[in-house]
Amino acid sequence: MADAKNAPKQPPKGSRLIPKGKLLAIGGKEDKGQGQAQDKDQNINFVDEQILKRFVTELKGDNPLVVVIPTASQEPVQSGQDYVQVFQQLGVANVQVMDIRTRRDALQPEHVETVNQAAGIMFTGGDQLRLTSIFGGTDLLEAMKERYAFTNIIIAGTSAGAAAMSTPMIYEGESDGGYIKGDVRLTTGLEFLKDVAIDTHFLARGRIVRMTQAIATNPECIGIGLEEDTAILVTEGGKVEVIGSGLITVVDGMGITETNIFDIQNGEPFTAKGLKVHLLGDKDEYFIPSYSRVQLK
Amino acid sequence: MADAKNAPKQPPKGSRLIPKGKLLAIGGKEDKGQGQAQDKDQNINFVDEQILKRFVTELKGDNPLVVVIPTASQEPVQSGQDYVQVFQQLGVANVQVMDIRTRRDALQPEHVETVNQAAGIMFTGGDQLRLTSIFGGTDLLEAMKERYAFTNIIIAGTSAGAAAMSTPMIYEGESDGGYIKGDVRLTTGLEFLKDVAIDTHFLARGRIVRMTQAIATNPECIGIGLEEDTAILVTEGGKVEVIGSGLITVVDGMGITETNIFDIQNGEPFTAKGLKVHLLGDKDEYFIPSYSRVQLK
Repeated sequence: MADAKNAPKQPPKGSRLIPKGKLLAIGGKEDKGQGQAQDKDQNINFVDEQILKRFVTELKGDNPLVVVIPTASQEPVQSGQDYVQVFQQLGVANVQVMDIRTRRDALQPEHVETVNQAAGIMFTGGDQLRLTSIFGGTDLLEAMKERYAFTNIIIAGTSAGAAAMSTPMIYEGESDGGYIKGDVRLTTGLEFLKDVAIDTHFLARGRIVRMTQAIATNPECIGIGLEEDTAILVTEGGKVEVIGSGLITVVDGMGITETNIFDIQNGEPFTAKGLKVHLLGDKDEYFIPSYSRVQLK
Repeated sequence: MADAKNAPKQPPKGSRLIPKGKLLAIGGKEDKGQGQAQDKDQNINFVDEQILKRFVTELKGDNPLVVVIPTASQEPVQSGQDYVQVFQQLGVANVQVMDIRTRRDALQPEHVETVNQAAGIMFTGGDQLRLTSIFGGTDLLEAMKERYAFTNIIIAGTSAGAAAMSTPMIYEGESDGGYIKGDVRLTTGLEFLKDVAIDTHFLARGRIVRMTQAIATNPECIGIGLEEDTAILVTEGGKVEVIGSGLITVVDGMGITETNIFDIQNGEPFTAKGLKVHLLGDKDEYFIPSYSRVQLK
């Protein structure tokens, strides 16, 4: 991992908390052993259930508890059951669905105890805005962050569940083109990772332009576009390992020399010159730039 | 300060960097001794140049350098000169304008040296999106953050300059009403302060609803609305003191029990129940809730 090409030359300045937990952000449609991954037949790099098997491998402790959170989904019962089934097939006996559908549910204190017992958490897909507006500012989210900071838990999310893990969070694009100013909506994500915008179904839905618009408004943040059946595993709060059959796209705007994003009105096309883009595949490594920046609250 | 009603009961968990610098976020139209503050005649709490005098009082060192950054403004020469004049009237001999108009300007390394010599920095008003898209991801912004983290610099901003200091940053509302989903645009701010959205001209332009929409999308963040000629001085990264002739409005969504923000389409009115609102005036104190949360990168 220390060989990643952009590895920081020096450790971050000042005191800083290095999370003991791991994050697994999945671009959607990860193979669940049911043949739904699109390129299963064509792609010789395809490995059955590769990403979810890695999640299971990372679970620590005896008889580890996996908590599935289907809150993003509009069909939470089905969505929760799908993951219970696949984790059981992968040998995890202890799987529990945390069926939180409203903010009132999330504020119930008993869920904190469940999170404190979990070895792994899995956020399903759906609508990422449900996750932030329901979990934001709750003791439950704070309990997850404490587990992530101080224990070896793994927190995973797919599709909307991945988009919500970092901040800023892209939650709605009015067109998939995204080249019109104002097409992309951002808010604060769940903030397990900062200064990173994660977008999913990235190549399948042609989202690089909407990602670039998000980055152009503040190039302090980088964009990570996850293709379907492809994931990033983040350790120590910033070391990235790519896992899966597809690519991830890193959009780095720090070198942008010119952009018109502040000169134009909503509805006009935006431009940006000097973007850096990396396409990374299975086993590739990358350091998130904010890893070596000064850490402010 | 330890008497603020919401003072944290325990220090933040884990290692954390407590910034040595201070932030001064001003709601716009601070009195500059030229009679432009709106309520100068009617408001018996009005004090001539109260906020800018406080900025000057907080400058440390002999012959302190104040750097004025007019980048947000579309009339940067005039805007810079206004502040040079008022600071000189207030007895600061050493005032310099850092006339950065593009991202290419911001990437020039000589500005880092100027920031490293500054005792105070003042961001003028204008358009906050210029600030984030021009300074985001630059070594210059990182130098300011290092000065803020490790030295007793004071970093101030008025209007757009205040809105950009924290993250998330509200940068455009299509209506001042803000009750229609999608009316409010957010991006990542300059991040001197996190999980706080600052809005300005707050009562003068009736912005509480658009602030609430921003908070409803993720109640992990609080909103601070600054009225004109009113400011917050932030020390230790989270202790707030109110300064000025008007009020600040704190919008705390952590107790929201119900919202429809994720169930509706753009263009529909949103609702939220259970907001907590504080109106605070000169000398009042407040702790930003994230001050006592676990700190992740």
